[in-house]
Amino acid sequence: MNLNLVDKHQDTLKEAVQALHERTFYARYPENPSPEVYGENADKEGRTNYKNQLNNKFTELLQQNPEAWVGQEESPYEQQPLGITYPFFSPETLVSRAEEAYHQWRKVKPAERAVLLVEALENMKQRFFDIAYATMHTTGQAYMMSFQASGPHAADRALEAVAAGYEEQTRFPESTEWEKPMGKYNLKLNKSWRAVPKGVALVIGCSTFPTWNTVPGMFASLVTGNPVIVKPHPKAVLPIAIVVAEVQKVLQENGLDPNICQLGVDANDHLITKDLAENPKIKLIDYTGGTEFGNYIESLPGKVTFTEKTGVNSIILDSMDDLDKVVQNLAFSVTLYSGQMCTAPQNFYVPETGVKVGGETVPYQEVVEKIAGAVTALVNNPKAAPHILGAIQNPATAARVKSAESVVGRQVLSTCDFENPMFSNARTCTPVIYEVDASEKESYSRELFGPVVLIIKTNDTAQSVAIAKEMAMSHGAISCGAYTTDSGIKEMIMDEMSLAGTPVSFNLTGNIYVNQNAGFSDFHVTGGNPAGNASFTNPEFVIKRFTWVGFREPALG
Amino acid sequence: MNLNLVDKHQDTLKEAVQALHERTFYARYPENPSPEVYGENADKEGRTNYKNQLNNKFTELLQQNPEAWVGQEESPYEQQPLGITYPFFSPETLVSRAEEAYHQWRKVKPAERAVLLVEALENMKQRFFDIAYATMHTTGQAYMMSFQASGPHAADRALEAVAAGYEEQTRFPESTEWEKPMGKYNLKLNKSWRAVPKGVALVIGCSTFPTWNTVPGMFASLVTGNPVIVKPHPKAVLPIAIVVAEVQKVLQENGLDPNICQLGVDANDHLITKDLAENPKIKLIDYTGGTEFGNYIESLPGKVTFTEKTGVNSIILDSMDDLDKVVQNLAFSVTLYSGQMCTAPQNFYVPETGVKVGGETVPYQEVVEKIAGAVTALVNNPKAAPHILGAIQNPATAARVKSAESVVGRQVLSTCDFENPMFSNARTCTPVIYEVDASEKESYSRELFGPVVLIIKTNDTAQSVAIAKEMAMSHGAISCGAYTTDSGIKEMIMDEMSLAGTPVSFNLTGNIYVNQNAGFSDFHVTGGNPAGNASFTNPEFVIKRFTWVGFREPALG
Repeated sequence: MNLNLVDKHQDTLKEAVQALHERTFYARYPENPSPEVYGENADKEGRTNYKNQLNNKFTELLQQNPEAWVGQEESPYEQQPLGITYPFFSPETLVSRAEEAYHQWRKVKPAERAVLLVEALENMKQRFFDIAYATMHTTGQAYMMSFQASGPHAADRALEAVAAGYEEQTRFPESTEWEKPMGKYNLKLNKSWRAVPKGVALVIGCSTFPTWNTVPGMFASLVTGNPVIVKPHPKAVLPIAIVVAEVQKVLQENGLDPNICQLGVDANDHLITKDLAENPKIKLIDYTGGTEFGNYIESLPGKVTFTEKTGVNSIILDSMDDLDKVVQNLAFSVTLYSGQMCTAPQNFYVPETGVKVGGETVPYQEVVEKIAGAVTALVNNPKAAPHILGAIQNPATAARVKSAESVVGRQVLSTCDFENPMFSNARTCTPVIYEVDASEKESYSRELFGPVVLIIKTNDTAQSVAIAKEMAMSHGAISCGAYTTDSGIKEMIMDEMSLAGTPVSFNLTGNIYVNQNAGFSDFHVTGGNPAGNASFTNPEFVIKRFTWVGFREPALG
Repeated sequence: MNLNLVDKHQDTLKEAVQALHERTFYARYPENPSPEVYGENADKEGRTNYKNQLNNKFTELLQQNPEAWVGQEESPYEQQPLGITYPFFSPETLVSRAEEAYHQWRKVKPAERAVLLVEALENMKQRFFDIAYATMHTTGQAYMMSFQASGPHAADRALEAVAAGYEEQTRFPESTEWEKPMGKYNLKLNKSWRAVPKGVALVIGCSTFPTWNTVPGMFASLVTGNPVIVKPHPKAVLPIAIVVAEVQKVLQENGLDPNICQLGVDANDHLITKDLAENPKIKLIDYTGGTEFGNYIESLPGKVTFTEKTGVNSIILDSMDDLDKVVQNLAFSVTLYSGQMCTAPQNFYVPETGVKVGGETVPYQEVVEKIAGAVTALVNNPKAAPHILGAIQNPATAARVKSAESVVGRQVLSTCDFENPMFSNARTCTPVIYEVDASEKESYSRELFGPVVLIIKTNDTAQSVAIAKEMAMSHGAISCGAYTTDSGIKEMIMDEMSLAGTPVSFNLTGNIYVNQNAGFSDFHVTGGNPAGNASFTNPEFVIKRFTWVGFREPALG
């Protein structure tokens, strides 16, 4: 391999490892898509590249001899097929090529694997605008989120996984001379250790965050020496296909087998995920998606699995300085990407006795109206709304929101078709709000994916916390927002929600939202409740991908 | 708590963490039971204490209101009941007390938990001779192994787990100020993180190494804030009961609930392990024992499990400088504690073309005879043999060795009753050796616990390695010894066995044996094959016992 890569990227790697431990703000990839940062023509070129790709084969991958060309993506903004096709390979071909590549990749030293992957991320940076348009038109995210989440934020999460994996594999010495005093003599052994990769890894992507949720597992498996098969959601292939292609190019340029990182797409007439997942050669699986399939993945014997499934995220309203600022913040959180984020809040717990605002009590009913009012104001703001709401990725989500199937309770705010001024055919809907009583547990005890808010009337904050905790422990939770000015209640919330493995954001107002989540600082998903067993990126996320094996031999002399 | 403990033990903790990373020789607890180290009367007092405990209640535990007093231990040396009884508590009582203790223990800071546990280990050191006699007369280990394995070596393994757990919980800051440049202003958040213990832990002990195999999981769970229920093997309670009592005393002295660490013994008429293991409140399980029950433990939903089951350990004979030294070393390894070690070698692979010794070929048959001869010489050495062989813990082991049930092949060496000069009633047998062909796979594809050696005639070393690897991958392996003077073959063995998650000791002769395994240096079990999913003590062994949960809030000002 090109040894200059070590010189080129070792500072980045070192910085990233340090950032993991300092856990203050760190980003390698600027989140601002401005011309000053990315160049005058970057956006335009990205748009052009995306348009040129439409109705064409995606030919960037270095995987040889496809069995067919397939594709079934369509734009939520245009409700039209993209017409892009990708090379199809049978699961057997993917796995046997990965198995072959394994024996090359595992012999590359962790430090070298790490810099190769950093090089790939630096090249991915040159594609952020291509990826942004690809993300918009597969996920329905608005432009800014498409750029940030699929580009710089994803690349930072990938770098985080590379840094964590590199650190864990180099935390113990490669070899030592072990010398034990035995009284009359010393017993001397040469000892050495190897971090042995587990084997072929599968990474199963989701339709809403095709790179952000895929690259952590993908880069974590790669840096620890495991070849990866990326199986994207059939409706969101292009963004991650670009990333896989960039990894393949770096591998080939450095004399390595590009099949160390393969794209494995579904056939048009059948899905290949189960065939891949159940293949005994697959040792590691990363999965993002629904709970039912996630539970199936976790149940597969002989695999190490990393899952992010669904959850019931909560907002606990107790007391605050400024209710208007709070409801504006919450309105943004539920409207952002039309609630299609795994971190979007759903269940809002409000005491029937109301909330305390600057010492005064605001009645329950007024709190409900303020929340609804803030959402209404936001979706009716023509300058903001289209850039926040985006479009609905899956028609089933829109249908669920519109039918409000099986939600028990009083409708506080109805959804409406939202006219996107740039895309007249966009599949959209605005947030819907229902009000239910704490006693109606069935109606709020599951994730209602999409822009659905349930306001749950509780006896008091203690009950709000108890239910939020119970929901998290029974059904999973990825985020929790709490508003309280009482330090005792704050500690109680931290303690109770920590037992439910749920991170809590307190008293967010202004430009920071409960849905947001920063690489190198916020662990994403804790692994401590049914929302998923993996966390980006704690040490567990990388160390389960390899095995420490030791060797020893008497030292001569 | 007594804050002096922090001053008293922080250097020990720091040294232990450093030792984990240096991985050269480190031991806190001297393995030599000499009067110079442990005091003139230590051994005598230990023997007296053990004798005084016989036929009496074990009253050291601080667990209140036992439901009964039970005990069923018997000495493999005397084949007599010990007559010791222990307080019995129902699984429900044990779990509800642990659950209550959890909410106290989890709030003690990791650094404080760590020094409390070091204090307990220092107090355990004062009991090493009590534990040694208790171990002899429950496991059948000889005196020296009883002392070393159950005393200093176990305490060092426990300290290793404490150090690893302490390090992992303090690797990330408790809190930071996170400041993100937003262009015109900086977004400031206070962030904090907690390592949240998983909940009630169960540690299931085995009959042959009642402390050594129990304390790593026990101390790993404790240091990470989980209350522990230790469920010893009903035939080997006393050694670990002493350790649990010492932990309880330190807890109580420091104002903590002794139920943070409970002993939970089986009733005389029924075993309580499954009731405990299946209790939904039990979140963590450490297990040492047979494969069938271990697989059941691993299959329990909603638990994090750490297992050490059985394996088929191998010796690969290719080439060496001095065959006599090699066979003497191997004879010791198979004779030590009559093969009742999880690291004892079983399958010896010898090429039919013989082995190379100093450039000359020694024929296969001569190698077999030399191995048998070395074992015969060792067991007939009256000064050495009783101190190496010990006694047979379980009558079923002796029966299996004597009947040689279902072993296909030619008997090379028969077993004999061995007369222990100190204990005329000791349950003993000497190693038995069978010879089978590589083609007779069924006869060597399982663990034959006890002093059973199978010599497997292979085509060549490549086949020896291939079979050893296959055995490890299919049936598990905890150790492998290989003898080769060829660096290419050595690298091939390292590479192949690393893929089977099996550590390899090369070219051991003299006073170091494949069965031995040093704390702070040799990972015990890799977790990478069916012999078990856990490793003493890699980071995975501790980090799976807690969840990182983060909190954040806008910073004022």
